[in-house]
Amino acid sequence: MRNWLLPEYIADILPATARQVESAKAAMLEGFRVAGYELVLPPLIEYIDSLVSEEDASLELKTFKLDDQLSGRQMGLRADITPQVSRIDAHLLGERTGVTRLCYAGSVVHTRPDGLASSREPLQVGAELYGYAGIEADLEIIELMLGTLERAGVSGLRLDIGHMAIYRGIAAAAGLSGETSRALFAKLQSKDLASIRELVCDVAEPYRSAFLALPELYGPIEELDRARSRLPSLPEVELGLMQLSAVAKALEGRVALSFDLTELRGTQYHNGLLFAAYAEGWAEELARGGRYDNVGRRFGRARPATGFSLDLRDLIRILPEQGSVRGIRLAGKHWPQARAEVARLREAGEMVVIDYLGESAQALNCDRELTPDGSDWHVVSFN
Amino acid sequence: MRNWLLPEYIADILPATARQVESAKAAMLEGFRVAGYELVLPPLIEYIDSLVSEEDASLELKTFKLDDQLSGRQMGLRADITPQVSRIDAHLLGERTGVTRLCYAGSVVHTRPDGLASSREPLQVGAELYGYAGIEADLEIIELMLGTLERAGVSGLRLDIGHMAIYRGIAAAAGLSGETSRALFAKLQSKDLASIRELVCDVAEPYRSAFLALPELYGPIEELDRARSRLPSLPEVELGLMQLSAVAKALEGRVALSFDLTELRGTQYHNGLLFAAYAEGWAEELARGGRYDNVGRRFGRARPATGFSLDLRDLIRILPEQGSVRGIRLAGKHWPQARAEVARLREAGEMVVIDYLGESAQALNCDRELTPDGSDWHVVSFN
Repeated sequence: MRNWLLPEYIADILPATARQVESAKAAMLEGFRVAGYELVLPPLIEYIDSLVSEEDASLELKTFKLDDQLSGRQMGLRADITPQVSRIDAHLLGERTGVTRLCYAGSVVHTRPDGLASSREPLQVGAELYGYAGIEADLEIIELMLGTLERAGVSGLRLDIGHMAIYRGIAAAAGLSGETSRALFAKLQSKDLASIRELVCDVAEPYRSAFLALPELYGPIEELDRARSRLPSLPEVELGLMQLSAVAKALEGRVALSFDLTELRGTQYHNGLLFAAYAEGWAEELARGGRYDNVGRRFGRARPATGFSLDLRDLIRILPEQGSVRGIRLAGKHWPQARAEVARLREAGEMVVIDYLGESAQALNCDRELTPDGSDWHVVSFN
Repeated sequence: MRNWLLPEYIADILPATARQVESAKAAMLEGFRVAGYELVLPPLIEYIDSLVSEEDASLELKTFKLDDQLSGRQMGLRADITPQVSRIDAHLLGERTGVTRLCYAGSVVHTRPDGLASSREPLQVGAELYGYAGIEADLEIIELMLGTLERAGVSGLRLDIGHMAIYRGIAAAAGLSGETSRALFAKLQSKDLASIRELVCDVAEPYRSAFLALPELYGPIEELDRARSRLPSLPEVELGLMQLSAVAKALEGRVALSFDLTELRGTQYHNGLLFAAYAEGWAEELARGGRYDNVGRRFGRARPATGFSLDLRDLIRILPEQGSVRGIRLAGKHWPQARAEVARLREAGEMVVIDYLGESAQALNCDRELTPDGSDWHVVSFN
């Protein structure tokens, strides 16, 4: 794909891939629909304070700023759709008191790419469940995430699970400041042992040992007991481990399962179970999610919430290429007479291409031809 | 729709409408596919000089500017998709010498709304045919435009046609400067007679009379001969009138047809046949298009081109509301046992909603319930 006219990490999606993106998206949205998730299409731009909360510095850096000529206020080009969906749950659908299930599919734009293989314009697809705090809601979202990837054609899925309460509980008990806590968590995520040791050197036991143990607490779900024995018995730690066990039990036989207490990408708004899906032979996660209760508080409505999202532009790279379906050529001179027959064929899903220039079968992507036979029409193999 | 949190002329699309937008879009893309149009998905942002040509001041004003932190160059948030598609035809598909048919569906963003009823974030859907200059290509695009609107559910269509060559031919023969020509054309479009008289007061006959006649040259296609008798016999005028007659003949019986030699919205890049589709009881045009040969010249490849586009966000307002399909409730406690049955129902297209809180039929949007009967499951009416 030549893209020398385009900015770095920005690309066109060309025909062969574009149809695949659209059909994967349609399959995903249909999967959401039958599971009761209502579609919302929030705008690409809105006021910056709706798109980015004060605490989320990394999202703020990722967001392009725009001046609203009508109000003089600052707007942003969305870098994430989740804050928009929580705004919709909080305000527009605010009269609902029960469970609200919402889904979306749309582009987001980042000022800089997340990594060398990332696009600055991910195509974010996701689903969120508001209004129920039970682990069953997280399980519903995990199964929806797995089903969504399978509908798109991914096979050989693996699931990683973690829990934000575990780290947060230990950090709170150890009395870490917000700043230290965030710095330490970043180092834990990258399993940077030297920096971790430095940051916890003044922390009291048993928390110091717990922080040092965390980077080693990952592996097949059967080894979750290792975590139980190496972490202090705090309510948050107990809750986290219990929920991890419950999820593992519910998903037994459904998917290969591992746990990781530090590496899963939690953002500022996550506070409970975390999960990420992987496929065989592909190092990067394909979809991720977790619980982020009270994300709607800044819109005036704190509610339990859990959800997942994926980047369809990224995902499409690992799907098998679809063979292109070839069409039927019609010589331009026959068009006025063949109109009704062409309409019939197209209604039945056949691609019929009108050929004005006498092009080759390959150029037209056709393997058959519509030819007149008296007042009848026949589809014959292309000569 | 309460949108007090959103900037003016920016709105969420909420569930009832969002599904309708997605299904209308899918129907349109399917119509494009069977007619041989290949889908492309150009990016939301790219370098400003690719998005806006130097001559097109109005598009430039509509386009939000962004700084590319990676290159230091100025980028834009696209306000139109046609320049992107012509870039793709010129460059990425540049090795093709025959006809290239491309289509797209995506959001564009405007700094200010086009009118009081407009959105600043139209959802632009369109199709373009490159590489064939004959009127058959314009006819193909017109029929595709009408078919696209019908697939989306619009009935009672009317078509207006015009031709840019007619005005341009007279303006060139009259020796108008580029600036005067553009100013006069704007006044003709709004049929502002006082200003038109002023602008043409020094123009020689027969061109002066021709300019004054143009605002009156509209009506049912049968009256096109009026134009022939009131306009000077210039090659461009002859060509324009001949093509208008040819289109009228080809579409006889297909759609109610009018002509208008000034009002059709031509942009800087249009140079041939123009067309717009209307629906009964709705003053604004629903879709518009025309010929814009050589639009790819600034990308290094001048080719014949014709195409149409519409704003799906706008269109959806006139479509009849779809009745929502109601689903099947499953009590949360039954989920683990009912898993296989739920998968079967969802595979068949039924929406099955898991109910954790014991909500009402209305809140869940369900009219049936999945209930256990021994090891069997039954779908029964909701109590």
